Amino acid sequence: MTSRTKVGIVGAGPAGLVLANLLLDAGVDCVVLERQSRRHCETRVRAGLLEHPSVAFLVERGWGERLLAEGKAHEGTVLRFGGRSHRIPYAELAGGRPMHVYPQQELVSDLIGIFLDRGGELHFDVPDVALADLGGEPRITSSVGEWGCDVVAGCDGFLGVSRASVPAGQLQVFDRHHEFGWVAMLAAAPPSTEEIIYALHAEGFAGHMLRTPTISRYYLQCPPDDDIANWPDERIWAGLQTRLGEQGWELQEGPVLEKGVVEMRSYVVEPMRYGRLFLVGDAAHIVPPVGAKGMNLAIWDARHLAEAVLRWVGDGDEGGLDAYSETCLRRIWRVQEFSLWMAHLLHRLDGGDPFLERSQLARLEYLCSSPAAATSFAENYVGLEQV
Amino acid sequence: MTSRTKVGIVGAGPAGLVLANLLLDAGVDCVVLERQSRRHCETRVRAGLLEHPSVAFLVERGWGERLLAEGKAHEGTVLRFGGRSHRIPYAELAGGRPMHVYPQQELVSDLIGIFLDRGGELHFDVPDVALADLGGEPRITSSVGEWGCDVVAGCDGFLGVSRASVPAGQLQVFDRHHEFGWVAMLAAAPPSTEEIIYALHAEGFAGHMLRTPTISRYYLQCPPDDDIANWPDERIWAGLQTRLGEQGWELQEGPVLEKGVVEMRSYVVEPMRYGRLFLVGDAAHIVPPVGAKGMNLAIWDARHLAEAVLRWVGDGDEGGLDAYSETCLRRIWRVQEFSLWMAHLLHRLDGGDPFLERSQLARLEYLCSSPAAATSFAENYVGLEQV
Repeated sequence: MTSRTKVGIVGAGPAGLVLANLLLDAGVDCVVLERQSRRHCETRVRAGLLEHPSVAFLVERGWGERLLAEGKAHEGTVLRFGGRSHRIPYAELAGGRPMHVYPQQELVSDLIGIFLDRGGELHFDVPDVALADLGGEPRITSSVGEWGCDVVAGCDGFLGVSRASVPAGQLQVFDRHHEFGWVAMLAAAPPSTEEIIYALHAEGFAGHMLRTPTISRYYLQCPPDDDIANWPDERIWAGLQTRLGEQGWELQEGPVLEKGVVEMRSYVVEPMRYGRLFLVGDAAHIVPPVGAKGMNLAIWDARHLAEAVLRWVGDGDEGGLDAYSETCLRRIWRVQEFSLWMAHLLHRLDGGDPFLERSQLARLEYLCSSPAAATSFAENYVGLEQV
Repeated sequence: MTSRTKVGIVGAGPAGLVLANLLLDAGVDCVVLERQSRRHCETRVRAGLLEHPSVAFLVERGWGERLLAEGKAHEGTVLRFGGRSHRIPYAELAGGRPMHVYPQQELVSDLIGIFLDRGGELHFDVPDVALADLGGEPRITSSVGEWGCDVVAGCDGFLGVSRASVPAGQLQVFDRHHEFGWVAMLAAAPPSTEEIIYALHAEGFAGHMLRTPTISRYYLQCPPDDDIANWPDERIWAGLQTRLGEQGWELQEGPVLEKGVVEMRSYVVEPMRYGRLFLVGDAAHIVPPVGAKGMNLAIWDARHLAEAVLRWVGDGDEGGLDAYSETCLRRIWRVQEFSLWMAHLLHRLDGGDPFLERSQLARLEYLCSSPAAATSFAENYVGLEQV
């Protein structure tokens, strides 16, 4: 038997949950279907850095209580190169706007709880979602039920069923693989820094990110197709020691909790719509993770789509839905450009090409000496208010 | 018979002439040898845009009278893309610092006149300069005389004898050829714009530069190895019409005075010294011309070398000479990076790769909407006071 819902939402990540909660707030009927278990969603380690506009939005909606209590506001970041550290006080440069470190799975847990507590309909463990009649009157089918929808929101990530359901040739694909990857490691070690460190060393990029007082995240540049088997724990710690090394600074080690190789990719489809299907977040685009923008873009997309749906539900005006893709893409391309700029700033390029190395150092020196350049970096990093 | 001079200067371009005049001012003996005729030096069309620090320096020395009278101060530039124009008011953004359009050959004429009027020794038409014993007690030999020098200043450009006289393996070469070139055209046409236009069109870059009220300069992106025979005048004008086109705007045409294909190259040698030979300006580095920085870098190098020589003549302190290369290279790499950034901003890349196209448009939109980004552009374009 087919049920009806206004908006069928595929995927309970940040995109789907922000959208679902916004619709629920406005009294618009919606159903969320998630492939994974609730436990999986609430524990999966992903991004951890929230733009200022994301935090302001979540707090304004009343969804930021735990984020403010347990997340940590940050006001600066450290660029380390040429054996020295340079601090960029981004919050001050961007008009007094801090960022927050708050692991994605915590935000997901919050948003799931808020949605379910208010009676939202969310099904976990639904591995067999399929989309039909997207160009006409769309339906979502699955083992837990079938829904006829006015709008389908594809919030199921890069590998989800939503984008894959669009007929070939309907979307223009922009896809770039990059010449570097990351060894990503999560360890039960207290942070060795108060603020995130991005380092460029002759051997390549290294990053020390923050999670909690007892767990930290680390990244090391590696070849894009590297195998994690090539990176025993000792090699990772040694690489971090070398690339992050600075006189008088010490790296605290601890048991490795998770590690893997992250591919770097820049990917966008246009438009972010096919018929009544709207693609949201990673389902439509991937950015290199260096700028930590993926989750933030997903939240922006979800906000734009919610606004468009409410306008249409309110007075039948399709204008917002028609503009959805273009509206989102302005920010997405801005963020693609920024993320790639930042990636090229901080990675060993072209096998250590000396010309590029000198250019990078000149760019880094300039960034650390020009208030205008640092402000431009800061406003992008913290999150532009408008694009 | 061998004469003596403190500083032998090879080349009477902006670098050599600024250095020679600074030394003459300070009473330091020097000789300038130039391969070409005076007439050739005073009429050869080259760059035309002077950074604010270059103008301030020339005026402060008392060499800027005609520059201020006949050159034209500029305070903004136009970026044209997506069929629309966006003005960057760079002078205002850079703290009230305009630039000046003043053709290089006019500045060269001024500096030749000033040097000769005060009794400076400058020989034109000396095609056979050779350098000897650069690592010991250097000598300059030529058909007009031979000089033993304490210092040789190689100011004879990219193809000159100076850099070529350094033994192989002594200099590290950084060399990049780029995927685009320029068709450069000078025409007897009044400018069709009040301010320089940089345009990015799907067909590629186009530029409309300024020279005088009756003569203008134009550039069109072309393949790097293109032949000017492929560019009859009509094709150039048509290309300009297309790429610069904007509703309500008209391109004024006129007789073509000169045209040719300009190769884009980024080149640096390190160090800019071998023994008692010091390389100055184009003899040591080439930047893509889009940022119009070549002549300005040459003036900076000459100023640094003059300062170092005066310190050494004054009290025998070699410190300035020892630091010369490193001091110059800080600005040179900053300017290389900026010039290439600007080139990549404004040229069709990788055969019109759609991902790069979208990224470029995002960068251009951002540059035209963010005061911080525009200020960063402006301070580089107008010329950083300190690097």
